[in-house]
Amino acid sequence: MYIKDLSKYEGQEVTLRGWASNRRSSKGLEFVILRDGTGFCQCIVDANQVSPAVFEKAGKLKLESSFSLKGKVVKDERQIGGYEVHVSELEIYQIAEEYPIAKKEHGVDFLTDNRHLWLRSSRQWAIMKIRNRIIYSIHQFFQENEFVEMDAPIFTGNACEGTTNLFETNYFDETAYLSQSGQLYGEAMAMAMGRIYTFGPTFRAEKSKTRRHLTEFWMIEPEMAFFDIFDNMDLIEQFLRRVVSDVLRDCKNELEIIGRDTSVLQNITKPFPRLTYDEAVRIIKGEQDVNGKNSIKELETELASVLASIDEHKKEIAEREEKIKTPGMKKGEIGFNQSKIDKLKQELADLEEQARNIPQWLNSARNFTYGNDLGGSDETVITRLFDVPIMVYNWPHAVKAFYLKRDPDDNRFARGVDVLAPEGYGEIVGGGERETNEQMLREKITEHELPMEAFEWYLDLRKYGSVPHAGFGLGLERLVTWICKLPHVRESIPFPRMMGRLLP
Amino acid sequence: MYIKDLSKYEGQEVTLRGWASNRRSSKGLEFVILRDGTGFCQCIVDANQVSPAVFEKAGKLKLESSFSLKGKVVKDERQIGGYEVHVSELEIYQIAEEYPIAKKEHGVDFLTDNRHLWLRSSRQWAIMKIRNRIIYSIHQFFQENEFVEMDAPIFTGNACEGTTNLFETNYFDETAYLSQSGQLYGEAMAMAMGRIYTFGPTFRAEKSKTRRHLTEFWMIEPEMAFFDIFDNMDLIEQFLRRVVSDVLRDCKNELEIIGRDTSVLQNITKPFPRLTYDEAVRIIKGEQDVNGKNSIKELETELASVLASIDEHKKEIAEREEKIKTPGMKKGEIGFNQSKIDKLKQELADLEEQARNIPQWLNSARNFTYGNDLGGSDETVITRLFDVPIMVYNWPHAVKAFYLKRDPDDNRFARGVDVLAPEGYGEIVGGGERETNEQMLREKITEHELPMEAFEWYLDLRKYGSVPHAGFGLGLERLVTWICKLPHVRESIPFPRMMGRLLP
Repeated sequence: MYIKDLSKYEGQEVTLRGWASNRRSSKGLEFVILRDGTGFCQCIVDANQVSPAVFEKAGKLKLESSFSLKGKVVKDERQIGGYEVHVSELEIYQIAEEYPIAKKEHGVDFLTDNRHLWLRSSRQWAIMKIRNRIIYSIHQFFQENEFVEMDAPIFTGNACEGTTNLFETNYFDETAYLSQSGQLYGEAMAMAMGRIYTFGPTFRAEKSKTRRHLTEFWMIEPEMAFFDIFDNMDLIEQFLRRVVSDVLRDCKNELEIIGRDTSVLQNITKPFPRLTYDEAVRIIKGEQDVNGKNSIKELETELASVLASIDEHKKEIAEREEKIKTPGMKKGEIGFNQSKIDKLKQELADLEEQARNIPQWLNSARNFTYGNDLGGSDETVITRLFDVPIMVYNWPHAVKAFYLKRDPDDNRFARGVDVLAPEGYGEIVGGGERETNEQMLREKITEHELPMEAFEWYLDLRKYGSVPHAGFGLGLERLVTWICKLPHVRESIPFPRMMGRLLP
Repeated sequence: MYIKDLSKYEGQEVTLRGWASNRRSSKGLEFVILRDGTGFCQCIVDANQVSPAVFEKAGKLKLESSFSLKGKVVKDERQIGGYEVHVSELEIYQIAEEYPIAKKEHGVDFLTDNRHLWLRSSRQWAIMKIRNRIIYSIHQFFQENEFVEMDAPIFTGNACEGTTNLFETNYFDETAYLSQSGQLYGEAMAMAMGRIYTFGPTFRAEKSKTRRHLTEFWMIEPEMAFFDIFDNMDLIEQFLRRVVSDVLRDCKNELEIIGRDTSVLQNITKPFPRLTYDEAVRIIKGEQDVNGKNSIKELETELASVLASIDEHKKEIAEREEKIKTPGMKKGEIGFNQSKIDKLKQELADLEEQARNIPQWLNSARNFTYGNDLGGSDETVITRLFDVPIMVYNWPHAVKAFYLKRDPDDNRFARGVDVLAPEGYGEIVGGGERETNEQMLREKITEHELPMEAFEWYLDLRKYGSVPHAGFGLGLERLVTWICKLPHVRESIPFPRMMGRLLP
């Protein structure tokens, strides 16, 4: 019997087991929030309705103590989930020690050090439930479309895009790299099975500590024989639409808990704009408006408004700090003002970060050099102008991986496509059509200074029945981060791994 | 349009694309076996029905050449899949170079060196389709039962069962181990989400080259709050029953291609015998019969029969080798005898391997020391007596991991459970109920000489709302190997990694 099923038992007696995620006492009543992994539920222990022993046990429940209870399910619209339980019996498994994560705000380092406990908070619980729905939706989409799940190896003797940023290990006195993409193996598997997808962890030894990077993250990499770049874009669009729609339908409660405004997600049913690299560059540089917006003007306007808001915040903080010095002010009023000050200071910190970021974005947008890859700032600038994922395709071939097909219509470009999530999130998918010509690949491998002998097996795919094919890679955590609108990718995975972060 | 859908298009004109997996010519006809990843289909090009250009193109198709064709779907019960295509048009993508994997028998090292191509053979294709069905069935089972998929980290600062056999990497000047189990993280996640499962790769630097070991393999590790060992065994049984049933229902064609006798798999609906360690030991040592069989007598009888068969094989080989020396014997007859000889020699090699193995099994069964863990030979001995997976539980605590709960009824035992696949396959699942007492765990960690500080976060789970819980780990490749009855685990994964095997 689980909390998620309470609605089926209205008016009936049920048994629940779990942990106390909160408790407050009030005039012969104990209000305990029980969490059991499937949800959260208010349980009321009334001294007039239970034995003194049960009431006493309820009063002992410290945060995260484990217990079971019996009680009657009562509808109450005000509760999360819509039900509460009026307790008749209660048994304790364990009274917890003093729980380190109290209700007050903690720094993110402290919370990450306690990730094994932080996962129990309602917000992290909701994110993990959404992550789970996304994962299963991905499997459902590909399986229902008869793709074959195939696992690419993690240990590789060859490095897909060079050995920079690769972790390595001693593999019985050989050097093995930890895969940063199953791409090349995906191609071999597509030649055997037609349409495949991989779903596994990938590794990058990124020294940068950004809100977008993990050293260990999960990738989904479909690869399809007889697909060109346009078939590929159609598939990406269907795929993302399906996943986001499943989350919207099945995770309403979780999205509400994390406070996600779902209106942008609802746009997923709209066609995804497809921009060539050339168009994307014009938009970033402010040479072309989009959706009635100009990138440079938007940023300038926003910067002005941020700066004004900073002044207002500083002024109000100063005023309130002055105010609470007033002699004889009541404790309650001081507390009220102090909590306002704390909130204002937190907002101020966010605003000041924006005030630092926006000039950088402006600078990188104004000075973007045609021919370069898009950086994180450029992705932020362009995706803030959209309310739906955009696809940027036909990239200058020099900035993309060696295995992308040269555009037959214009030799300067490669048939790659990046999908950028809106609201400033940036790249979630990278993919493209693959080069089918063995000689072209050999030239590219030489040009990228990669060791030819490690790619001989891959080149075999062009010797024995080369066919047009395409595929893409989706970064799971980046998708979760965008769908949940998280400030940092670290909250999108149960146990994040970043530079300097190996525990718990 | 794919081969798997041909039955829906009987009598109609279709377009197919793929590779030539075989071709033979006969009196104005070309018979080409097309494979497209979804299946195999005979396509007939009749010189009287197509243009000379099309017939000429068909004649050029070397093995694994890529092409598309148009043709009419015609029912033919004799064909795999039940349909063939009468070709009207044919276009070549690429004539393949001389394909290295011909129809003749190759050594397994050669095939593994060419794994990227070997995957195209019908047997490997079928195994991969079954593997895919197993993977999705696992997700379906857990998702339908409302488990939350949660990923344990691959990089860990602490080692679950000691650092022997672990791969390590330089992680920004710290040492990170590659996970050999997500177990401990699974427990933390179950305390947050109730019932979870992980599905990811795990790594063991096993120096042994056995038919059961890979260095990189996929594990599924469910963990359930409020489960004891008996709930756990019930779940394992339901779970394996579901997966095998799905394969039997959905992979008939693939099981037929690999020649799997499915009668043993059908037994999956029977209850799984649950033996204590004590009973298992008596059965292995031949002190207790099971299913009317005695382990020692069975092995002795089999050894005698293998030795007799070896003699017969040797005799027949000698006779035939003598025979083909007969002067004037026709080429056809020599060829016929030579292929018989080749086949007999292959069988002889298998028999000789058995003649080497059985005495070892006998020896290890007869001399098994009560209190030891079961070795590979012991698992082989006991599971050859069953036609359904068996569960062995209540193990001597000293041979099992530190985190297993001590049996409250008998302190000598730990509440672990191993599931052994029948037909000699052995362990596919290991699991058990977890110790809930912090002090007991600290003692065990000390006893196992593990670094206590690396486990402090894990011990937190016993401080903050400790509850009864249990879980298990399933080795995906071992399950695939048993279901497909493969001689070696290496065929159960797209790109196997073993000692000395890092490419392709």
